[in-house]
Amino acid sequence: MQLRVDILGIESGGKPIVFLNKHDADEVGVTASGRIKINLKRRELTAIVNISTTVKIGTIGVNNEVRKKLDLRQHSVVEVEVATFPKSLQFIHHKLKGQRLLYSEILEIVKDVVEGNLNEGEITAFVTALDIQGLDLDEAVSLSSSMVATGKQLHLRKKIIADKHSIGGVPGDKTTLLVVPIVAAAGVTIPKASSRAITSAAGTADRAETIMPVNFGIEEMESIVKKCNGCIVWGGSLELAPADDIFVRTEYSLYIDPLLLPSIMSKKKAVGATHLIIDIPTGRGAKVKTIGEADLLAKDLIELGRKLGIHTQCILTHGEMPVGYTLGASLEAREALSVLMNKSNVPDLIDKACHLAGSLFEMIGKDNGYHLAKEILRTGKAEKKMREIIALQGGNPRMGLDDFKIGQEVKEIKSKKSGQVLWMDNNSLVEIARAAGSPKDKGAGIILNKKEGDRVKSGDLLFTVYAEKSRKLSRVEDLLSSIEPIGVGERKEMFIHKIKESPVVKRAFVIDR
Amino acid sequence: MQLRVDILGIESGGKPIVFLNKHDADEVGVTASGRIKINLKRRELTAIVNISTTVKIGTIGVNNEVRKKLDLRQHSVVEVEVATFPKSLQFIHHKLKGQRLLYSEILEIVKDVVEGNLNEGEITAFVTALDIQGLDLDEAVSLSSSMVATGKQLHLRKKIIADKHSIGGVPGDKTTLLVVPIVAAAGVTIPKASSRAITSAAGTADRAETIMPVNFGIEEMESIVKKCNGCIVWGGSLELAPADDIFVRTEYSLYIDPLLLPSIMSKKKAVGATHLIIDIPTGRGAKVKTIGEADLLAKDLIELGRKLGIHTQCILTHGEMPVGYTLGASLEAREALSVLMNKSNVPDLIDKACHLAGSLFEMIGKDNGYHLAKEILRTGKAEKKMREIIALQGGNPRMGLDDFKIGQEVKEIKSKKSGQVLWMDNNSLVEIARAAGSPKDKGAGIILNKKEGDRVKSGDLLFTVYAEKSRKLSRVEDLLSSIEPIGVGERKEMFIHKIKESPVVKRAFVIDR
Repeated sequence: MQLRVDILGIESGGKPIVFLNKHDADEVGVTASGRIKINLKRRELTAIVNISTTVKIGTIGVNNEVRKKLDLRQHSVVEVEVATFPKSLQFIHHKLKGQRLLYSEILEIVKDVVEGNLNEGEITAFVTALDIQGLDLDEAVSLSSSMVATGKQLHLRKKIIADKHSIGGVPGDKTTLLVVPIVAAAGVTIPKASSRAITSAAGTADRAETIMPVNFGIEEMESIVKKCNGCIVWGGSLELAPADDIFVRTEYSLYIDPLLLPSIMSKKKAVGATHLIIDIPTGRGAKVKTIGEADLLAKDLIELGRKLGIHTQCILTHGEMPVGYTLGASLEAREALSVLMNKSNVPDLIDKACHLAGSLFEMIGKDNGYHLAKEILRTGKAEKKMREIIALQGGNPRMGLDDFKIGQEVKEIKSKKSGQVLWMDNNSLVEIARAAGSPKDKGAGIILNKKEGDRVKSGDLLFTVYAEKSRKLSRVEDLLSSIEPIGVGERKEMFIHKIKESPVVKRAFVIDR
Repeated sequence: MQLRVDILGIESGGKPIVFLNKHDADEVGVTASGRIKINLKRRELTAIVNISTTVKIGTIGVNNEVRKKLDLRQHSVVEVEVATFPKSLQFIHHKLKGQRLLYSEILEIVKDVVEGNLNEGEITAFVTALDIQGLDLDEAVSLSSSMVATGKQLHLRKKIIADKHSIGGVPGDKTTLLVVPIVAAAGVTIPKASSRAITSAAGTADRAETIMPVNFGIEEMESIVKKCNGCIVWGGSLELAPADDIFVRTEYSLYIDPLLLPSIMSKKKAVGATHLIIDIPTGRGAKVKTIGEADLLAKDLIELGRKLGIHTQCILTHGEMPVGYTLGASLEAREALSVLMNKSNVPDLIDKACHLAGSLFEMIGKDNGYHLAKEILRTGKAEKKMREIIALQGGNPRMGLDDFKIGQEVKEIKSKKSGQVLWMDNNSLVEIARAAGSPKDKGAGIILNKKEGDRVKSGDLLFTVYAEKSRKLSRVEDLLSSIEPIGVGERKEMFIHKIKESPVVKRAFVIDR
């Protein structure tokens, strides 16, 4: 039937959505969340239907996605008919029933996700089915390849392309800001695409952005890497695996992450990585809790890498407390730059960065990788490379440690006991940093004045919270009355916690990729 | 933070939805599909967030649901903060991981579904998890009770309240239009709430609506039943189990229906049923394919009924071809009325109705139920009761067979062969009726001129299609070129079908409840 267009001026994150009057929807034969085909002058688009009583009969309300794709004007007349269910729904149903999916079937699903042909519920059903039924290696390969096929790719035409990834979950992990310049300084190509924080205090892209711009298209990234072997850019603007950005949204509130492996590997494949080192922070308070779990994850990642033609190695690292002494984008970037400039010694951060860079060196045939990495850092070659990258990405290559903008609202937390720092609770520290404004306010965060194992006297400073806004600092003060992020004492207490009725599970699900 | 209200004038089927600018969303700390709490003068509401680039900074776009619940005006200033995830998300996650859920947990989920605190994806995750992990009897009881607790209830204060249900899936099933007046004429209370078609050609509410109004609130229903022992109203306007209407929307496109049993039983419990007869149409082309399957389903229904305090019996009926000679709301209602008036003999319809009504009679202690039902029909008592119900529901109690509006666009389909009707394909017949305009156009439908087992000569009329609009009749003609709804021949052919690559599964999932 024919309907007159009403442009509503709303955007829906890429999804084509229309609003129909109940009467017209019945006439077309479509219900809410159903799909219609819209035709205008040989252009055709499938859109998802919302039923609205406020849209007039004979009218179709369209969002900006539909307006743009069909080049609609106010009062254009379009031809509308009910769209058959996309074939991919059948494949989702098959997965629900426990069947394995073929590459062609997974590709069809991923395509429909990217093109907006599946609604939010249908995408969630797929993710839920993957989580419950599991996916085997072939399916993981198919998912990775499908995400690559539906996104953009980097073409560097190099024999060796290195990459680094962290499974995440440990706060304060600014290791990438060291690994990339160290590796690039050795003449090895490392085109690093990083993520922003979703559930953490800062992602590598957030940290890097306090030093230099990080939003680039794929061509700009290519040209930067060709000039200096490396870059640290935000993956989100590269459109490497647009399907993944949609999947991750549905996973977040359900505390599941079945697409973790394909998500990681698709992005590495899309930048053309040939050698990949993956950091798996392990332990209480990290994403991966036990060494057994970490070993299994590593095996899967290596095997998936092999099938995709990426040489992959994994490193298990201690994940029970933050890396270095800072949390929050600016504070962390300043700490990393200070280490690159050899102006401060942060043993755990340096050790971790040199292990990762060193392993990459050894994978591509350089001996004594750890030592080589440390030398590149010590001699200032890493700093020089970092400043080269900063310049090419449009930052100030002469940036100093005083140029970082740190929040002016400060709260110092002191120890009430003497003894030793027995434990640091990653989740509580992240919660505090987020209450202070992270990741939105880049100047917000935490400086840890003590770390696990340090001796403490009553009244000593334990940590300092920085915020850009006093309103957010009061949120932190409220929070501090109910949580204890750092434990001080002479010995660990035996009591963990008591379960009265149903256990109250505190939200601590990390989904940053 | 404070935001100024912009009333967008869109409705979202009951869900409270707001639109925020990306900047404000980051400031509040919420992402798309996340939740915020909105406060205005002590009123508080949780709403689901959409990110929009067209909403101005400092402004919050609201849909009509939000406007009404908070009594907002254009440019009202509201206080907005990020809402914590509803607790029910944890319970959904537990089900996803295969855990059993307690009553309190299921109630929490169902409440949040009804109140709009869970988004489409999260509701689908729950339904998907139920489908894959299954639900045990206790969980089914909890779901039924939770749906009753979150909806309205009928209070008739009678010792015996009868009810009748069909699992559905067989077209042309107008049995309820006979069973209700037969049972009520015997002095037994039967407050029948019926559904409209979702995937079929007509639901009982659609059929009844061609005779009399069916949209009533719960109090009106109560008063009608008190006067004449029975009614045939649409369940949708009674709000008996609002959660179910939301669940069913997510199940539809995924071809799953894990909530079938709780859905049925919650609505029976909500009208106060004490004795329930359930029709399970069985066979190829029905919803339940085998007698073994039907037996298991019956066992579950009876057991669930027992736990809910409803005496339940099930009847397996032949479901391989339509009941009676008609499909489509008006045609079916006319056929039913004609049988009530003893003006035509439709053996399978009469037989089925008398078995169902008769079983109810026997359940409550009346002997020779089948015979009693048949007598009530033969003596015209059922017709008299029907006309009483019609009058109380606001229809014309003197309605005759010529008063039905049947589509004027007619297409006759003749047999190309001589022989016997070997099979009738329920799904194809429904597809044709729907192409002709059912269930939207009440005058659309099919008259079956032959049924299974009938002798046919080449050129004999097989069936006749009626449509209200010529455009829709041409859709039927297109369809008829690709499907064969009725098979004529001397003997069944051995060939069923060939599988070349992946089998093309034709959509035939019945979700009408």
